[in-house]
Amino acid sequence: MRILSGIQPSGKLHIGNYFGAMKPCIELQEQGDAYIFIANYHAMTTVQDGNALREMTTDVALDFLAAGIDPERTALYRQSDVPEVHELAWLLSTVCPMGLLERCHSYKDKIAKGISPMHGLFAYPVLMAADILAVQSNVVPVGKDQKQHVEVTRDLAVKFNNTFGEVFTIPEPSIREHVAVVPGVDGQKMSKSYDNTIEIFMEGKPLKKRVMSILTDSKQLEDPKEPETCNVFALCKLLSTEEEQAALAERYRAGGMGYGHAKLELLEKINSHFAPMREKRRELAANMDYVEDVLKTGAEKASVLARETLSKARHAVGLQ
Amino acid sequence: MRILSGIQPSGKLHIGNYFGAMKPCIELQEQGDAYIFIANYHAMTTVQDGNALREMTTDVALDFLAAGIDPERTALYRQSDVPEVHELAWLLSTVCPMGLLERCHSYKDKIAKGISPMHGLFAYPVLMAADILAVQSNVVPVGKDQKQHVEVTRDLAVKFNNTFGEVFTIPEPSIREHVAVVPGVDGQKMSKSYDNTIEIFMEGKPLKKRVMSILTDSKQLEDPKEPETCNVFALCKLLSTEEEQAALAERYRAGGMGYGHAKLELLEKINSHFAPMREKRRELAANMDYVEDVLKTGAEKASVLARETLSKARHAVGLQ
Repeated sequence: MRILSGIQPSGKLHIGNYFGAMKPCIELQEQGDAYIFIANYHAMTTVQDGNALREMTTDVALDFLAAGIDPERTALYRQSDVPEVHELAWLLSTVCPMGLLERCHSYKDKIAKGISPMHGLFAYPVLMAADILAVQSNVVPVGKDQKQHVEVTRDLAVKFNNTFGEVFTIPEPSIREHVAVVPGVDGQKMSKSYDNTIEIFMEGKPLKKRVMSILTDSKQLEDPKEPETCNVFALCKLLSTEEEQAALAERYRAGGMGYGHAKLELLEKINSHFAPMREKRRELAANMDYVEDVLKTGAEKASVLARETLSKARHAVGLQ
Repeated sequence: MRILSGIQPSGKLHIGNYFGAMKPCIELQEQGDAYIFIANYHAMTTVQDGNALREMTTDVALDFLAAGIDPERTALYRQSDVPEVHELAWLLSTVCPMGLLERCHSYKDKIAKGISPMHGLFAYPVLMAADILAVQSNVVPVGKDQKQHVEVTRDLAVKFNNTFGEVFTIPEPSIREHVAVVPGVDGQKMSKSYDNTIEIFMEGKPLKKRVMSILTDSKQLEDPKEPETCNVFALCKLLSTEEEQAALAERYRAGGMGYGHAKLELLEKINSHFAPMREKRRELAANMDYVEDVLKTGAEKASVLARETLSKARHAVGLQ
């Protein structure tokens, strides 16, 4: 079974996108033949600064490898190292009704939020379809917000196959139903755009300051506290075994433990959980030739599939 | 001065598209460093049959070479042999406001005529911009109907250069003001879609039948006739010197010459004008390896420019 997933470079990795997107992505390598790409073409719809995009792309590569991608099993690559997807996107565009793109919630939502209506943003689902179909992926794990784009992909693949003959594998979406909801330091969903993140590769005093700033209610040291509504507890949960969670919940309810204590415990958990990744990331960052090799090897593996698909598709439509 | 022009493959070459599009295109090689491509990606927005597209593409190549393209001076190539344009089109899409495409008359006209609103049709001006900018063309000769697309190209190039730094040459349109209006056998504009064409590589009885079927008024042999309103005369003009035109006009006005005579004279002119091209085309068709070589060499010449442009553009946006 071939599985494809992409992640947009979006700045420093934080606990929210680690548990929400990166960890599930890395776990794919246990489930099948995984292809994971850094979606730098897609990122261009929001990032219009060359140096920033380059840096963000390298950061994601380091993050992925530090967090556990095994390049022996998984093809990790930059989207821009498989440029064949753009020609495939054109082929799909010629069988893609405008209405299919006009109905995409993601585009409408972004415009409603005030993002400029650019053609790149509008055409994004066609490029995503090309990414998926190029490697003939069987399964595409996505969050609920991306489900519609996999449906667009299926529609285009079916339409193309019906018009020109069987070229594409029809992919199945695999919806991540139970995505961890990770609160930020202010209690809203952790997100770079709310400036409420706790970065995974932050350390020492800046990290401590960040953790100590997590918003709690105003209960006193001696008061019994409710773990279910506490942001600190929610973050601890992500980094604890079930027994540890139960023990901590017990201490919350018993009273006598202040939020300061809970925060220090969280800080310790963050440090111990991510220490090996931080170490790994430092080693990788000092060895960028290796990282570049991994990305090139991954791209080559994906390119072999993309070129084969493209050759079939080009022949089917009469370009060769 | 670098000049780029493209022609969509659209079936058998007729007198209308020879004088309206192909001849002006071939004459570009007298004016500068000409790049002429067979727009088979664009043709996909209307042709959805692999064998038909392949055949039409080969036909255009044979037509161009038979009609006088000199491959030593002009790079003649299939658009699909320079697939780099699609990646460039994506880069341009990220700075292309939807409104710019929504305002394109060509798209609106096609939809008004009942053509299905496909994304390929909508995105066509972005791909055309990429074709032009990839080879850093200075001049783009176009008919009036395509002027807006060159303006879109200029807008996108300026916007990209302003956002990411100087990458693209800003092309100038060169509008063909005096395009020969060529009537078909029914007096409407000669066009495949009206089924009123006279094909250039048609010969013998079928050609004679076609010419004899040209619509005229019902004046008798002895009547004086008006050359200005006569379809036969209009076609003769295209194939005559000014003196020949004046002499024929004189015979029209004098009376005593029937339309049948005029048609036979036209037939003779067609045969003598196109005989060398027909001969050349037969030779080329018997030597497809040579034709393929010409197209490959042209594509290689255009690819060198496209790859250089793309590399600059990729660096500017941060993909490499």
